[in-house]
Amino acid sequence: MYLMKSTLDFKLLDDIRQIKPLVHHITNNVTINDCANITLCLGALPVMANSIDEVEEIVENADSLVLNMGTLSNEQYNAILLAGEKANQKNIPIVLDPVGVGATTSRTKKILELLEIIKPTVIKGNAAEISILSGQYGVLKGIESQGIYNNIIPSAEKLANSYNCIVAVTGQNDIITNGQRTFIIENGHWLMGKIIGTGCMAASVIGCFMATGIKTLEACTCALSAYGISAELASIRDDVRGPGSFKSALMDEAYNLQVETINQLARIRKV
Amino acid sequence: MYLMKSTLDFKLLDDIRQIKPLVHHITNNVTINDCANITLCLGALPVMANSIDEVEEIVENADSLVLNMGTLSNEQYNAILLAGEKANQKNIPIVLDPVGVGATTSRTKKILELLEIIKPTVIKGNAAEISILSGQYGVLKGIESQGIYNNIIPSAEKLANSYNCIVAVTGQNDIITNGQRTFIIENGHWLMGKIIGTGCMAASVIGCFMATGIKTLEACTCALSAYGISAELASIRDDVRGPGSFKSALMDEAYNLQVETINQLARIRKV
Amino acid sequence: MYLMKSTLDFKLLDDIRQIKPLVHHITNNVTINDCANITLCLGALPVMANSIDEVEEIVENADSLVLNMGTLSNEQYNAILLAGEKANQKNIPIVLDPVGVGATTSRTKKILELLEIIKPTVIKGNAAEISILSGQYGVLKGIESQGIYNNIIPSAEKLANSYNCIVAVTGQNDIITNGQRTFIIENGHWLMGKIIGTGCMAASVIGCFMATGIKTLEACTCALSAYGISAELASIRDDVRGPGSFKSALMDEAYNLQVETINQLARIRKV
Repeated sequence: MYLMKSTLDFKLLDDIRQIKPLVHHITNNVTINDCANITLCLGALPVMANSIDEVEEIVENADSLVLNMGTLSNEQYNAILLAGEKANQKNIPIVLDPVGVGATTSRTKKILELLEIIKPTVIKGNAAEISILSGQYGVLKGIESQGIYNNIIPSAEKLANSYNCIVAVTGQNDIITNGQRTFIIENGHWLMGKIIGTGCMAASVIGCFMATGIKTLEACTCALSAYGISAELASIRDDVRGPGSFKSALMDEAYNLQVETINQLARIRKV
Repeated sequence: MYLMKSTLDFKLLDDIRQIKPLVHHITNNVTINDCANITLCLGALPVMANSIDEVEEIVENADSLVLNMGTLSNEQYNAILLAGEKANQKNIPIVLDPVGVGATTSRTKKILELLEIIKPTVIKGNAAEISILSGQYGVLKGIESQGIYNNIIPSAEKLANSYNCIVAVTGQNDIITNGQRTFIIENGHWLMGKIIGTGCMAASVIGCFMATGIKTLEACTCALSAYGISAELASIRDDVRGPGSFKSALMDEAYNLQVETINQLARIRKV
Repeated sequence: MYLMKSTLDFKLLDDIRQIKPLVHHITNNVTINDCANITLCLGALPVMANSIDEVEEIVENADSLVLNMGTLSNEQYNAILLAGEKANQKNIPIVLDPVGVGATTSRTKKILELLEIIKPTVIKGNAAEISILSGQYGVLKGIESQGIYNNIIPSAEKLANSYNCIVAVTGQNDIITNGQRTFIIENGHWLMGKIIGTGCMAASVIGCFMATGIKTLEACTCALSAYGISAELASIRDDVRGPGSFKSALMDEAYNLQVETINQLARIRKV
């Protein structure tokens, strides 16, 4: 049922730890610390510069760029535009997290405008966000996806084809597609939904894997499987008694994760 | 000595978990992650939007609004005004945390100005902040209350009557009053004073309980008792060895808290 | 080989806990929560105000000022200038963390401009940052020091003499110099490099010790030794299984640290 280990190359995790690529984030101020820590735990180097005076210079030296629109001032939006355009020029992979698209008029407008100007390598969102971005109906409560999206796979594929990018839908199962081929990842744990920042960190994790230079659907799939397995390993630890201790354990397990463990625990299916 | 369980309805905690209300925060950038996490641990959904372009739209869909003036740019102050006015129009409960009122001229001025424009449902502060807001003398070191306030109960009652709201004074014992009736909550633990953010999180917890639609003195009292009991349960865990591990445990215990446990451990007195 | 306990006065830690000095931070939004927590764990009171409307008033009542240039808007830079000038006027010690100097043109320019205007008591950085500030060659990847700096001691001494201040270079071993006398601290643990914020927190720790009123090379040396020992104690705990649990344990151990333990474990050499 699941893809054999030979199909996907989880050795990318070792590449991250050897190359120590630079992952530039422009992100919200709620989970910025978590995003930086998960990046460092995986073996990459985070840099969180967000001043319009320097983001272009930072991104030129970065190996990937993670753009998260969770809390957005006009200044930060301008920094995102500058960094994104520079990354596109330099062929640096961009992971875009359109947090809460559809939640407010101004947020939706900004995200759609952004997608006219910069070309992301990966768009990562929850089911409601991806559905809305693909032009379908979606419901958010705050920034959390509500309801059931039976058509989420075709929606994600449509969005991937529209922007010629990879689309990742995170949820109980994750969906990854480039519009032609689609994977479903069954790794992960429900405790991820009980702490703030697991969605934002998912984008950071993808950013780490993309920063190795392998910008494929498979690399993105490896990333989310590795992340989900870290959560699974954390969830079964005897010192985890709730969301607070789970969060610390998740960082620990991302740091301790081995390629061989991913090979054993990955649950990835082709659609 | 303590109020019988029949007097207060701690089942509100179950209501939070069932309704999953949306608690909109506009808050400082020091403890924003903690406020979001405690909200999620209690079963509500946090949303932390602070852009003037969207706070009105967000607050319209929220079940309560938590306003914290800990770190305050002019832009954030304007967002607070917009969100607060909209919440008042829509009858959405507001919990105001006037962090550090009295600490600086500009902060005091802004907070007093805010209270001319928006009407909070609850004002939550430490003894110095509440004393100062009520027109009495108070001393802060940074944002921490200094000295002893023998008249804090009449000060809190006066403030509650002035603004026709509930006033919550957090400290070793918490005081909750609507100006007519006053409760003292003896739950809590001194380790709460050894981590940053327990004051801010107290406002979030009140925001979660108010978001059920029950905007009473009793709901507010339940909130702070439940919060204090979470801290007590965390403090006695064998894996808590100081403030760092206590913080994780506090989140765990807020998540795991049961109504029956609150009924057993609540120490609430009528004044 | 190591300095005898009589040479350095680790009792400063008890002074912090007794005086509870106020340590004003203007710092980046990535690690602001960590800086506030480590300050509180050591026994001082943090205040993180960064609004230009109030930083001067806050700093007047502070016992030390920690300035960190990690994420820097123009507004925050102006707040740093105002607070720094006021601190200099009032003879309040300033700890400057020139995060990422040399990483971008605008950041380097701002930091050099700042050093024309305000006079820090301590400049703390990694080897690349200190080397660059002293006019030598240095390489940063993001904000992490790259390469080996054989001349770091003379570079640090030169910088100390240029600005007539103390210079602290953090790394596997820490170097502290006032240009005339130089100490090497061998305390610390490699796990400190696996979490975000240990560099920023080092500046906070120095700020706590300086806030006792003892602004000497020895006080600064005590600070970094105490911090490194906290990390060592955390690293050997049986509940530490990676960076996430290490971070909680580091806070615990900073809180629990005793003067006698520092005396036993300090590894400080004179150059």
